[in-house]
Amino acid sequence: MGVRVARFNNGSRVLWGVLTSTGKIEPIAGEFDSLGSLLTAGRGAVHQAAEVENGSISLSDVQLLSPVTKPTKIVCQGVNYANHRAEAGMKPERAPYNLIFYKSDSALAGPGDHVVRPSNVRLLDYEVEVGLVIGKDITARTEITQSNFVDYVAGMVIANDVSARDVQMLEGQWYKGKSYRTFCPVGPYLYLFDDNEAALIHELELNLYVNGEVRQSAHTSQLLFKPEETLTELSEILDLVPGDLVLTGTPGGVALKMSPDVAKVMNDPAVSFADKRAALMESQSHITNYLNDGDEMVCTVRSADGRADLGELRNKVVSSK
Amino acid sequence: MGVRVARFNNGSRVLWGVLTSTGKIEPIAGEFDSLGSLLTAGRGAVHQAAEVENGSISLSDVQLLSPVTKPTKIVCQGVNYANHRAEAGMKPERAPYNLIFYKSDSALAGPGDHVVRPSNVRLLDYEVEVGLVIGKDITARTEITQSNFVDYVAGMVIANDVSARDVQMLEGQWYKGKSYRTFCPVGPYLYLFDDNEAALIHELELNLYVNGEVRQSAHTSQLLFKPEETLTELSEILDLVPGDLVLTGTPGGVALKMSPDVAKVMNDPAVSFADKRAALMESQSHITNYLNDGDEMVCTVRSADGRADLGELRNKVVSSK
Repeated sequence: MGVRVARFNNGSRVLWGVLTSTGKIEPIAGEFDSLGSLLTAGRGAVHQAAEVENGSISLSDVQLLSPVTKPTKIVCQGVNYANHRAEAGMKPERAPYNLIFYKSDSALAGPGDHVVRPSNVRLLDYEVEVGLVIGKDITARTEITQSNFVDYVAGMVIANDVSARDVQMLEGQWYKGKSYRTFCPVGPYLYLFDDNEAALIHELELNLYVNGEVRQSAHTSQLLFKPEETLTELSEILDLVPGDLVLTGTPGGVALKMSPDVAKVMNDPAVSFADKRAALMESQSHITNYLNDGDEMVCTVRSADGRADLGELRNKVVSSK
Repeated sequence: MGVRVARFNNGSRVLWGVLTSTGKIEPIAGEFDSLGSLLTAGRGAVHQAAEVENGSISLSDVQLLSPVTKPTKIVCQGVNYANHRAEAGMKPERAPYNLIFYKSDSALAGPGDHVVRPSNVRLLDYEVEVGLVIGKDITARTEITQSNFVDYVAGMVIANDVSARDVQMLEGQWYKGKSYRTFCPVGPYLYLFDDNEAALIHELELNLYVNGEVRQSAHTSQLLFKPEETLTELSEILDLVPGDLVLTGTPGGVALKMSPDVAKVMNDPAVSFADKRAALMESQSHITNYLNDGDEMVCTVRSADGRADLGELRNKVVSSK
């Protein structure tokens, strides 16, 4: 059974702790100024804290923070579930390539933090995802398999890849529309894998609710490009270091619903920006699922057998004004 | 007159120094483990070193390194010169939006380092750019103007935004094709602005040569989205911290030449990957300017009046095997 690690503010300082079986937090001994340093220098201290059955701190006495700390990479997979491909106007089958994009680390937010809608954004959308947290340097081509998976992937988190569809779809490159401050809530816990839990990543249920209504519901067995092959490919391209985050993609059920015809217009370099914008706004105008100020998103990830539970990531949308 | 800062390896350790008027390096006193820490804690030491007329170290005795250090953000502007827009199959005028993408910091390479062509990449291309180095936290909307420009932008570097066109154009999102290790040579110097040099950013000539032949030649007055307005927009979206890098885009003259018709095929979601690939390779097959193993790229940036000279960024292409 893995360990759930929390980063929290106790009112005067930021600490790391472990969630105990009684639902309290046991602080981790030592000073770790980043998730990377906790994962490289603090594993022993984490396991020591995990041996304490009754934590010393009540969850209600602290503010939980994102367990992923800045600076970090946030490397993301796009359209990696068949039903999300279809709603984005694409063929639902696995693509001939693994679509990768990037999100700024200044988008990180913690559990309970507000997601701030920029005043220019009309089509604000949610995306529940399982995030992989790197535990060991990957600086050259590395074949990642089930057998070495937990050597390289320390654990996993719930993430919400909040997206400004009007910016993302109209500008073509997704970095900007995915990177606004607060657009990457993460937490409440980092689930640190046990040595024998490599298969767990394929046995997870993920759900997202808006104001209590289920919007996304999927299972990681549906991932088109699997975590092992994705990390193997990334290892051929770039470096990942302890604490870096890889988001595995979101399933169907987001607000965005784009027909292949509208997707074609969005991508046509001969269509003017104004005409693209008009086509996008018209195509989405009947959709009531886009996020409104005051909406509350709840993301959950747990194993189908209930053994591993990453908790609830709860964030409310507010206006930037 | 600004100061040229170098990061170098003297054979036993990595140090910072200043280029003196006699073409030697004067070491900067103190320990700075990142460009960010040099720019926040080491400004006094930099200016002290700059007062020494005759440096104590010969350039031939050291290996110059990228002055930009990891971890860092590399935020990039795309298609920001009219003649590069035209050769990429786009309308040459300023677009209705500032196209932003991202490059992994593990792509950073130093002057003299080899650029390694991945074995799967056939269409390897060069892009000389002026890089802005952030000098002060930008964590909320900030109006950046000529008057506060050098407060927020410590200086500038030459950068080469090396690109795998076959990956970039076929996969749509540019992060992967721009992020391979060694795909971001930077240096040889960080040109630290003097207080009165805000206008300098608009007065730069940039050139790129391959095997001595000029391929790109432009002037920063041609930038469509200016550094001040770009940083103002970025400040509305994400955080930038000292040492972060913003690349301002490349001018015309890259190897890629894409007609609007081929650009349309590349972006058409109804065209299969195989057909896109065939169309791209066919359209580029007559172009002899793509980089071959053994080619040497030289990038230069200097002010038109010769006052500021950022040096020569020289990198050779080698195969990954």
